[in-house]
Amino acid sequence: MAKESLTIGVVAPAARIEPELAARVEALAATLFPDAPPTLRVHPQCFQSAGHFAGTDAERSAAFLDYANDPDVDAIWFARGGYGSCRLSDGLFAALNDAARAKTYMGYSDTGSLLGRLYKEGIGTVVHGPMPADLNRGDGGHDPAPARPTADAGRDAVARALRFLVSRDAAALEPTAAGGDKTAAFNLTILAHLVGTPWAPDLTDHVVMLEDVSEYLYRIDRAFFTVTSSPLVRKAKGIKLGRVSDVLENDTADFVFSEEEIAKTWCARSGIPYLGRADIGHDAANKVVVFGGAARA
Amino acid sequence: MAKESLTIGVVAPAARIEPELAARVEALAATLFPDAPPTLRVHPQCFQSAGHFAGTDAERSAAFLDYANDPDVDAIWFARGGYGSCRLSDGLFAALNDAARAKTYMGYSDTGSLLGRLYKEGIGTVVHGPMPADLNRGDGGHDPAPARPTADAGRDAVARALRFLVSRDAAALEPTAAGGDKTAAFNLTILAHLVGTPWAPDLTDHVVMLEDVSEYLYRIDRAFFTVTSSPLVRKAKGIKLGRVSDVLENDTADFVFSEEEIAKTWCARSGIPYLGRADIGHDAANKVVVFGGAARA
Repeated sequence: MAKESLTIGVVAPAARIEPELAARVEALAATLFPDAPPTLRVHPQCFQSAGHFAGTDAERSAAFLDYANDPDVDAIWFARGGYGSCRLSDGLFAALNDAARAKTYMGYSDTGSLLGRLYKEGIGTVVHGPMPADLNRGDGGHDPAPARPTADAGRDAVARALRFLVSRDAAALEPTAAGGDKTAAFNLTILAHLVGTPWAPDLTDHVVMLEDVSEYLYRIDRAFFTVTSSPLVRKAKGIKLGRVSDVLENDTADFVFSEEEIAKTWCARSGIPYLGRADIGHDAANKVVVFGGAARA
Repeated sequence: MAKESLTIGVVAPAARIEPELAARVEALAATLFPDAPPTLRVHPQCFQSAGHFAGTDAERSAAFLDYANDPDVDAIWFARGGYGSCRLSDGLFAALNDAARAKTYMGYSDTGSLLGRLYKEGIGTVVHGPMPADLNRGDGGHDPAPARPTADAGRDAVARALRFLVSRDAAALEPTAAGGDKTAAFNLTILAHLVGTPWAPDLTDHVVMLEDVSEYLYRIDRAFFTVTSSPLVRKAKGIKLGRVSDVLENDTADFVFSEEEIAKTWCARSGIPYLGRADIGHDAANKVVVFGGAARA
């Protein structure tokens, strides 16, 4: 990069974060890169509140457009998931300029609606990876416990994301994603809600990694029905299953199949190769996956 | 009809029912039509159990095909919802014969996966309406309370379905569905999981009625995003909102919008006319809607 240090713009297309969290992420970035710390520009919109959302649809859309189109911002980092990314204005995408097309966009979970659409439109470098709010994992935050909790689980997750954003640290990559394959990663439920819309990317020849959290297994099964029936996914190179965590308990009989049996069943039915497990999930161990493959990063 | 009385075949593509429930529905049918009671042929598969399901996928598929292709069965009545209809064999549909094409198929909720696909394939008369398991509503059954509970709420629901199956009783019809419009009715979440697959019907010029139960409002909103973004639904004449019952409470802030505001917002965004409320829902007041319009029944 031509500049001495990176400028990372943080916006919140779904739920809000606390100013205190933003300050802790800035402090962590300063510690990780003492010689040339990245500048974190946290959009004030991140702290706004409109019921469930970090501001109204118009406010969240404007903040995203503001930073995406700003040539002084090198990367857009989504603050956290929750729900709301699919509500951003459809008009946004036509309004993105050349500066927006040169950027990296990182997030996961609900923000997969935006990542998928940016990737479909061929805008920027689209990356599945930890978000600022992951700093709260494993240290009393509200999010589910990480798959492999450590005292500094949340710190490790956010440091992984920052190292990838700042220096394209290959150690941050999900192992499959570090190879030569085209890759994509989604929250399963988000992809199931995207494939029926005009905004879903074509995943031909991609290794598609899917993870989920806080769902009943029958809903995981139903989402697999949708995703593996989609013509956009049927042309994939294969599916890898990330972690399915915090599974809710059935109120009637046990569901018959485990999450991996579900994935294998639907892959077999649909003729999509099942390629094993992926190291992604709603947890602090969540790794980085570049849409299209690591060579694009 | 040529025969003196109707034969209704009951199969369970999703969850099982108890033999005692089937006996009560048969007794009700005998009471309602003392001169020519319909014959209820309840497939033994309805009482089978495989974890979450009324038998394995193969067993449920075989039972459906058995009764659908039987020329002595006039109508297929799905026993109850739950989850599992989308798991029936894809090969079923090509195996349906002329007897299957002459039948009526009635159900709702999870069985909408099958209704939608039958309608897409142009097979039979496809009808959204109460199911045998609705007999348990309002009298100590496990299902959510009806919208307008009465002591005999469940009995009224099942009687409504039977009167429509036996005599095409116009009083059973949802008011909109009684007019000249093309109509269709779905559980919102089921339709959201169907529109991304090759099995979703084209809803051009249809009044599409949507209901849901036991969901968070943010999920209702997300499903509306998917359904109203679907090219198959964007050509609809309009959307009518059925009841959204037993809404789950957000664990963070209140969701900003009511279910009707959600429906209006997404209809406005997508250019689909919002046509008001429909008298359908996961409750004993749930009315009958014929896919394609009442004139097809």
